[in-house]
Amino acid sequence: MHGPVVPSPDAHPTLRPHSPTRAELTGGPWLRWQRVNREVSLPLALGWLEKAGNLNNLRIAAGEAEGSFRGPVYMDSDVHKVLESVAWELQHGRHADSATPAERAELTDFVDRTARLLERAQADDGYLDSAYQVAQPDARYTKLVDSHEHYCAGHLMQAAVAAQRGGVDPDGRLLAVARRFADHLAEVFLPDPGPGLDGHPEVETALVELYRVTGEARYLELATAFVERRGRGLVGDHKRGERHRQDHLPVREAPTVTGHAVRGLYLEAGIVDVAVETGDASLLAASVARWEDMVASRTSLTGGLGSRQVGEVFGERYELPPDLSYNETCASAASVQWSWRLLLATGEARYADLIERTLFNAFGAARSADGRTYYKGNPLQRRPDHAEAVGDPRCRDEWFFSACCPPAVTRLVAALEHHAATWSRDADGAVLHLQQYAPMTLSHPLPDGGEFGLRVATDYPWDGAVEITVTRAPERPCALALRIPPWSVRTRLAVNGEAEAADPDEKGYAVLRRPWRVGDTVVLHLDLTPRLTVPHPRIDAVRGAAAVERGPLVYCFEQVDQPEGTEVDELALAPDATFEELPLADLDGVGRTLLLRTAAVAVTGTHEAGLPYRTHGGPSAAADTRRPTTATAVPYYQWDNRGDGAMRVWVPLL
Amino acid sequence: MHGPVVPSPDAHPTLRPHSPTRAELTGGPWLRWQRVNREVSLPLALGWLEKAGNLNNLRIAAGEAEGSFRGPVYMDSDVHKVLESVAWELQHGRHADSATPAERAELTDFVDRTARLLERAQADDGYLDSAYQVAQPDARYTKLVDSHEHYCAGHLMQAAVAAQRGGVDPDGRLLAVARRFADHLAEVFLPDPGPGLDGHPEVETALVELYRVTGEARYLELATAFVERRGRGLVGDHKRGERHRQDHLPVREAPTVTGHAVRGLYLEAGIVDVAVETGDASLLAASVARWEDMVASRTSLTGGLGSRQVGEVFGERYELPPDLSYNETCASAASVQWSWRLLLATGEARYADLIERTLFNAFGAARSADGRTYYKGNPLQRRPDHAEAVGDPRCRDEWFFSACCPPAVTRLVAALEHHAATWSRDADGAVLHLQQYAPMTLSHPLPDGGEFGLRVATDYPWDGAVEITVTRAPERPCALALRIPPWSVRTRLAVNGEAEAADPDEKGYAVLRRPWRVGDTVVLHLDLTPRLTVPHPRIDAVRGAAAVERGPLVYCFEQVDQPEGTEVDELALAPDATFEELPLADLDGVGRTLLLRTAAVAVTGTHEAGLPYRTHGGPSAAADTRRPTTATAVPYYQWDNRGDGAMRVWVPLL
Repeated sequence: MHGPVVPSPDAHPTLRPHSPTRAELTGGPWLRWQRVNREVSLPLALGWLEKAGNLNNLRIAAGEAEGSFRGPVYMDSDVHKVLESVAWELQHGRHADSATPAERAELTDFVDRTARLLERAQADDGYLDSAYQVAQPDARYTKLVDSHEHYCAGHLMQAAVAAQRGGVDPDGRLLAVARRFADHLAEVFLPDPGPGLDGHPEVETALVELYRVTGEARYLELATAFVERRGRGLVGDHKRGERHRQDHLPVREAPTVTGHAVRGLYLEAGIVDVAVETGDASLLAASVARWEDMVASRTSLTGGLGSRQVGEVFGERYELPPDLSYNETCASAASVQWSWRLLLATGEARYADLIERTLFNAFGAARSADGRTYYKGNPLQRRPDHAEAVGDPRCRDEWFFSACCPPAVTRLVAALEHHAATWSRDADGAVLHLQQYAPMTLSHPLPDGGEFGLRVATDYPWDGAVEITVTRAPERPCALALRIPPWSVRTRLAVNGEAEAADPDEKGYAVLRRPWRVGDTVVLHLDLTPRLTVPHPRIDAVRGAAAVERGPLVYCFEQVDQPEGTEVDELALAPDATFEELPLADLDGVGRTLLLRTAAVAVTGTHEAGLPYRTHGGPSAAADTRRPTTATAVPYYQWDNRGDGAMRVWVPLL
Repeated sequence: MHGPVVPSPDAHPTLRPHSPTRAELTGGPWLRWQRVNREVSLPLALGWLEKAGNLNNLRIAAGEAEGSFRGPVYMDSDVHKVLESVAWELQHGRHADSATPAERAELTDFVDRTARLLERAQADDGYLDSAYQVAQPDARYTKLVDSHEHYCAGHLMQAAVAAQRGGVDPDGRLLAVARRFADHLAEVFLPDPGPGLDGHPEVETALVELYRVTGEARYLELATAFVERRGRGLVGDHKRGERHRQDHLPVREAPTVTGHAVRGLYLEAGIVDVAVETGDASLLAASVARWEDMVASRTSLTGGLGSRQVGEVFGERYELPPDLSYNETCASAASVQWSWRLLLATGEARYADLIERTLFNAFGAARSADGRTYYKGNPLQRRPDHAEAVGDPRCRDEWFFSACCPPAVTRLVAALEHHAATWSRDADGAVLHLQQYAPMTLSHPLPDGGEFGLRVATDYPWDGAVEITVTRAPERPCALALRIPPWSVRTRLAVNGEAEAADPDEKGYAVLRRPWRVGDTVVLHLDLTPRLTVPHPRIDAVRGAAAVERGPLVYCFEQVDQPEGTEVDELALAPDATFEELPLADLDGVGRTLLLRTAAVAVTGTHEAGLPYRTHGGPSAAADTRRPTTATAVPYYQWDNRGDGAMRVWVPLL
């Protein structure tokens, strides 16, 4: 059992993923997300693949149905992404008493039926893309800038890889379909320069993953070729230009992420995969440099990426509007994919920090608490008049014409536990890293014998105490490395009741290396004191404002939680505001949560007539009205589960 | 000779437009704009109508050329708008020694040739729209939500009206074409409810204007029907919904402007035209209420309108991002059209205030100083990396696939002087209002005999002194009303050297009523002290920032004017900043201008690595670096004539 990204034995990662053979989440928000994933989201997705026509497109391609192709050209990719989601989900059932037999049977049957359908739809030469087989049979590979043919192929490969790693493709049918397509791609595209490059990266990382599962070197070779050919004008003309399709500069030279955010992030995942497998340090360094620039100047506080709605692109440096940022759900998922690969490549905790920030905020907010509806865009503000102002209310939907985001959520949620731990071996022995904190059990076979078993008990992220009990102890000493998030100011650590230094090493971990015995307990206390966060002075859109964070959670102010007569958009906070933690509660529609409350001021503008501008200190400058009130905040990832009122993350400072 | 909007004798306006029979601009920025209009912009536009295929589309419709229709469905409207521009321009030549005989001949010939072409292209039943005649002959009126058929008809009528008022359609050919189309529309659409409503308002105001020129009551009747039928679902389905096409509520009920900004503004112009002609006070009041809401919550400091790029719509209340606002050039022109009608309807100076703000800022900035290139969107900020960040550099272009904006500029520029003065008659006699200040001469025949002639000498907007000399005096006393802009704090006024009260009356004018003699001089001193302007606390996007204004001009900071090493995006101003006025100069590429300079601070953020957020007062909160510098500002309307560097109107306050 393995999750996304398992570097091959010959690869050069710093860390390797923990094999979650006997790992499972046992509580906390992530388990809740996996539960609604299984109970609500996946059944809905299966239904939508019928209703929206995705499966029928494949039946037409297989000659088993009549009609014409429906939906955008990348309809097949939704099928593949749901398959991948189901494959990860079916891993859980083997270890946790979670899915009912009926649920398991339905999902297993879906994989089997769909694999057979794909097999029948696949062309004799291995090509498989219903959009072109059905609607434009003569257009194959003629408009790669927009066609998504490699993109769909990549998602097919990722589905097959997930099924293979999860053992849910026992007769290898899905893998065989994916291999036939990959072999076909290698035949057509390996000869330099080939018929072109896909305008939507994704196949690069998928080919490397397929190489990891199959050992077929040509897949890695093709992924490398696609990565190296990028930035040389091979994608073709696009109305938004070469930057939009990441074709303006070779990937070793491009200094920043640019263009369509999801495309750019998928490309980076493939770049890191190739670099790790080939040991290409300079290729890796180029991707790291872009990650650093992106984090420093183009990332929302929630981890959301892609600040401009027009073109769904990364914006300019420090262009981070809370209301208008796109922050596409797929981009949050893709960011986790990129950072996960960089974490394995480098062993630096900062990548796990961003993963945690993204999962608990931008990504977590995309889906409603009940698992039923999704945002594609995830702004940090909603105004009170959003529903009536422009006729485009900002609310979640069950599915979309362009339905990339829902299965992007389900496939990552189903694989969350794979991102919680990693291991490595150094001169002193093995190291097991806890990268994310959640109630879970895990057991890791050590390369030098024995097994390291842990039980993690915590009410994180509501409580900062993480209690780790050793359930299986290896014979020889080994290290437990605990990621110390940068926001935890006063971290405490104890082993069997005795205090230990909690200072992180240069990579960001507190490392405990010692002989372990069953029953040993490690208690980590992360500092969850609520904090006021202020922006860099170049972020124009939130100047003079602050956000509230507590541990990994960004908070937001929703209208529903404010006192009668206090408008969210009139709230202002004192720079020395302190926050009362309300008792943990199960909030209707939201689930378990911890609200924060503070004294605040409601500011009402004085000049409601005429233009909303006035001369500073001028005769017309009557002071705005201020009155004391309270402000109550809820975790951003739990917003919009109680009506369509105003919301804001950034609140003016007095 | 008359300009846009001449209420019929039976109408109910408060003011009537000054007849500029013997009026002309004699200097200042507006005359400069008219000069480049004639010398550069109009010849370029004539060339583009050939290059882009607009004229050829009509030739195909006339059966005189081969080929297929090119461009968006509203290509004809560009022809009509250039015709209207030329018609207003040709008025000037009769009074001012400005156009050369060769220029006049070329423009006159264009009107004649194009009127004949339109005549030949027009269908026997009066219909005229090459997009449908050539490409979709069977689709006439079947997709009005997007077809722009009435929109194009409206622009044809406005061209004919301008030609008629300017006397440049001596044999009435263009007017006859417009009338035939209007008669056809009346026949098809007057019976209730008709085949639908156009998704792009414009024909409403045009039909009223055509009624004013022809006296044909059916045109007013049809305009009234179109206005009253709006908001009842007759436009048809649109993916952005009914609000986008202003079809969600009847115009008497809609509380705010909504949807596509240009569409909304054109509709309002038509509503006011109908209200004034029919004496419908409640219809007028509904439009006034929407104007007030728009001004109070959806208007950029520059007068720009339509804050959201996606859908080109009015945004939510207080959604006014300086970097991402669309502020379409056509919306600026349409705003002037609406306010001009409201000014005539009500006699309130606030409408002339907004006209002045819009013309001197959002509208004036749309075209380069040389008259060659245009912005469609007019944001208040450009970042240093705009050109490389998203591959969509923010610069002006000569023409566009959707070329609505260039001829929207040329037609309004050519008619600017028509907005400078109005007259009315009250119980005490006639009143001549100076609504805008520019060097000019004007002479107005009074209804009770005689003529009131004035010469206005001023270096406005650079200098606040406006000297008005009486050149023709009527026999009986009459009033001169001078608009006092709200930003003029210490206004002074003198007649023949003797001080007079400069306080504006409740409508916004200082009124001098007396017997006049030739040679009398009135000197108005408007207070142009530079001022720091701060935003309403609900405008999130510019919180903590201020803008610099001087008289009617919004200023901006361009990179090119700052000291070496001072980045525009690092500038911050003290709340008590004072501004030095640099000597008036003719700046290369820009023309005559007055720069402002102040002491400022350059703020450099300390946290360039990691996320651009930090805990307020936390241990990592090293102070940002601050160092003194100077900041130099140029009028916003003159920006981007010296390279593509950064620019900002709103600058952080320290």
